[in-house]
Amino acid sequence: MSDQIAVTRKLADFVVRSKPSDVPDTVYTEAERSFLNWIGCAVGGSIHPALDRAMAALLPFAGPAQATILGRGNQTDLLHTALLNGISSHVFDFDDTHLKTIIHPAGPVASAVLAYAETKPITGRELLHAFILGVEVECRIGNSVYPEHYDRGWHITGTAGVFGAAAAIGKLLGLTEQRMTWALGIAATQSAGLREMFGTMCKSFHPGRAAQNGTFAALLAAQDFTSSDRGIEAPRGFAHVASTKFDPKEITERLGETWEIALNTYKPFACGIVIHPAIDGCVQLRNLHGIKAEHVASIELKVHPLVLELTGKEAPRTGLEGKFSVYHSCAAAIVHGRCGEHEYSDEVVSDPVIVGLRQKVRAKATPGIHEDQVDVMLTTTDGRVHHLFVEHAIGSLGRPMTNAELDAKVQDLCEPVLGPAGATRLIAEARRLVSSPDAARVVAVAVPAR
Amino acid sequence: MSDQIAVTRKLADFVVRSKPSDVPDTVYTEAERSFLNWIGCAVGGSIHPALDRAMAALLPFAGPAQATILGRGNQTDLLHTALLNGISSHVFDFDDTHLKTIIHPAGPVASAVLAYAETKPITGRELLHAFILGVEVECRIGNSVYPEHYDRGWHITGTAGVFGAAAAIGKLLGLTEQRMTWALGIAATQSAGLREMFGTMCKSFHPGRAAQNGTFAALLAAQDFTSSDRGIEAPRGFAHVASTKFDPKEITERLGETWEIALNTYKPFACGIVIHPAIDGCVQLRNLHGIKAEHVASIELKVHPLVLELTGKEAPRTGLEGKFSVYHSCAAAIVHGRCGEHEYSDEVVSDPVIVGLRQKVRAKATPGIHEDQVDVMLTTTDGRVHHLFVEHAIGSLGRPMTNAELDAKVQDLCEPVLGPAGATRLIAEARRLVSSPDAARVVAVAVPAR
Repeated sequence: MSDQIAVTRKLADFVVRSKPSDVPDTVYTEAERSFLNWIGCAVGGSIHPALDRAMAALLPFAGPAQATILGRGNQTDLLHTALLNGISSHVFDFDDTHLKTIIHPAGPVASAVLAYAETKPITGRELLHAFILGVEVECRIGNSVYPEHYDRGWHITGTAGVFGAAAAIGKLLGLTEQRMTWALGIAATQSAGLREMFGTMCKSFHPGRAAQNGTFAALLAAQDFTSSDRGIEAPRGFAHVASTKFDPKEITERLGETWEIALNTYKPFACGIVIHPAIDGCVQLRNLHGIKAEHVASIELKVHPLVLELTGKEAPRTGLEGKFSVYHSCAAAIVHGRCGEHEYSDEVVSDPVIVGLRQKVRAKATPGIHEDQVDVMLTTTDGRVHHLFVEHAIGSLGRPMTNAELDAKVQDLCEPVLGPAGATRLIAEARRLVSSPDAARVVAVAVPAR
Repeated sequence: MSDQIAVTRKLADFVVRSKPSDVPDTVYTEAERSFLNWIGCAVGGSIHPALDRAMAALLPFAGPAQATILGRGNQTDLLHTALLNGISSHVFDFDDTHLKTIIHPAGPVASAVLAYAETKPITGRELLHAFILGVEVECRIGNSVYPEHYDRGWHITGTAGVFGAAAAIGKLLGLTEQRMTWALGIAATQSAGLREMFGTMCKSFHPGRAAQNGTFAALLAAQDFTSSDRGIEAPRGFAHVASTKFDPKEITERLGETWEIALNTYKPFACGIVIHPAIDGCVQLRNLHGIKAEHVASIELKVHPLVLELTGKEAPRTGLEGKFSVYHSCAAAIVHGRCGEHEYSDEVVSDPVIVGLRQKVRAKATPGIHEDQVDVMLTTTDGRVHHLFVEHAIGSLGRPMTNAELDAKVQDLCEPVLGPAGATRLIAEARRLVSSPDAARVVAVAVPAR
């Protein structure tokens, strides 16, 4: 029955018909924030060894210099650029989150559209419009199969992301409805990515490959390379093959009236989202009361059970392990007042002050504490007790990062690559993307000065 | 339990350790036949519009001239060459079949290794060894999840093929066991291809993309791009995520003792394998009794039920529809004595003699008739009755195509592209591949003379 709805064609029709003026200004504003967060992560992540290895492996086979590897400045072809920037943007696990599906929406779509903007001039508004549409397609397809699809073991950022990239690039290519339908079909038949890869370089490969494969799908469809017209909803299409749940209404209802990108969130801290309330609480207490490491006698946390399940590592040895330790994260929050990528370096994790402090942190799974909440009780060596209940952690939908906080995050991410002034320039350029006559202009300030 | 077997690592270890001399000569002989059949299909299929469209879409983004598009002569980078030759090799649906899984084994693996041989000199024996290993990996993984994986809607040639290409290219790159394990993991997380695409250009895209993505996986692994060590067998690895059945023993038992490529079969006719017995029977009766169209009063077939289910189209209008018509196929078999790609052209399907004859063909699903069998009763206008029971259709495992028949098939496929003498040269070169000092030499005779 529900298979009767021509979901793929409806989505294609929606994307093809959408005009930039159909999208409310508030949605453009959130898209600009998503884009800023994405480019900050991509520039910051570009120093990761995963990118060195991917470049060493693939550039000998790559095409002409058409687009730019962010944070590096090397140029390569459109398809490889989409891949490489997508890898960088996810490699710190610091990018955005669509909380309904835990898709990281920007990676697959923004990596594709910005690379495309270097091959054919488009305005910032055109780029953001295509980006918004791509995220809409990606997240609605995600909504239609979540959570069963994810529970089965698919990394939904990869599997749904490829549709978003195909839709966004298809829009920029000006595909007809039939070709857009084929683009989504060619995306469907490339949809891939396993959760088994978490903890390896393949995790960040997924959004990159989704960006590349979605672009690839749109390019093929533009030349009438044919596909099924029902790539998503057919009995042997994406949704039924890769999920035991499929609700097509999640794709078709109120299409063009609501916008999934408006539900996007940004991580203030460079670790799994479950520890964010605890870090937030510790940073707040530190700043309110001028707490230093030597003042702390104990920190008692009441947390959601997932915190201990996912991040209960008591004695992390490396920066990466630190990301899975609520104890280290709280210690770093007290000492440094933040938990950026730097606070998850090997040095900080083995700093004796931090190691001493993390042993004073206790966490207890407590009924009634929601995932974006924490209860913190900090006792000082002179016997004072400071208590704080965090109702909504910073970065959650209930308490989104302010523009200033988002700028500070991006500044922090980009400084090691672009220098302080360079990071500030990038933020300024990204902040005026919606009115930019040439979307690719932002690329020039997303690479180190020569 | 079964998840405890480190299947991915065992496969990697097997491929890494295998020496050319570990493989029996008879297996090389079958590999050479598989390779010949594959290159014939690829050269013949290179004239298909799917290839024009893929080339128009992708070559503007492709890399340096490293390898050759078969049947065309254009050169492009290794990765795109693997894709394009893989598309050509499957686009007529005339390539090989591993009957246990209905994988078309050569497309994903041969398309990768021949392109690779143009980038780094290897002997014919080295190429065939890597090809045999790739097919082994691909088909054993297929065996482990078939039929549930296929029934769920996955096009197994694409989903299993990517592992075969990764293993074969990994072998030629000389990967260590750890890197080979990662190559298989990177293949796992790209495994894709939906049966919904059957009847569109995306079907032939699947083996091509598997060849390209498997190559890609091996190149990344060679640079230490990390992946899971348990990409196949982990709870969130390929087998459990994409299939409800997984039998790891199909992968590990008697590894190195039996060879899946020895079970490969080649289609004598350019259509779905279920009609092959009927065509075979009609061709035999024609040749035995000198039957011409005007002699036929009726042809009565007793067939396996799948014949009518899949190929019951009574009045096909196009060449492609003719492939799904047992009636057209038998008429063409009587008139032309064969059913090559030519007999599935629009002209032949609308030829009044054929149309008249096909209306005299009746087919009845009959219990006890096996899939590779048929019972044919041909009555002539002067009242004689000719009867034939086909025990094993030509091209089945029970009655494989002879070398001469295979040569004739390849000759037929390649003549429109290479001319008669060119086709003969290609066959001769492919027939001595195992002793060739330079495997890439066959490429020079697989393109039209300038």
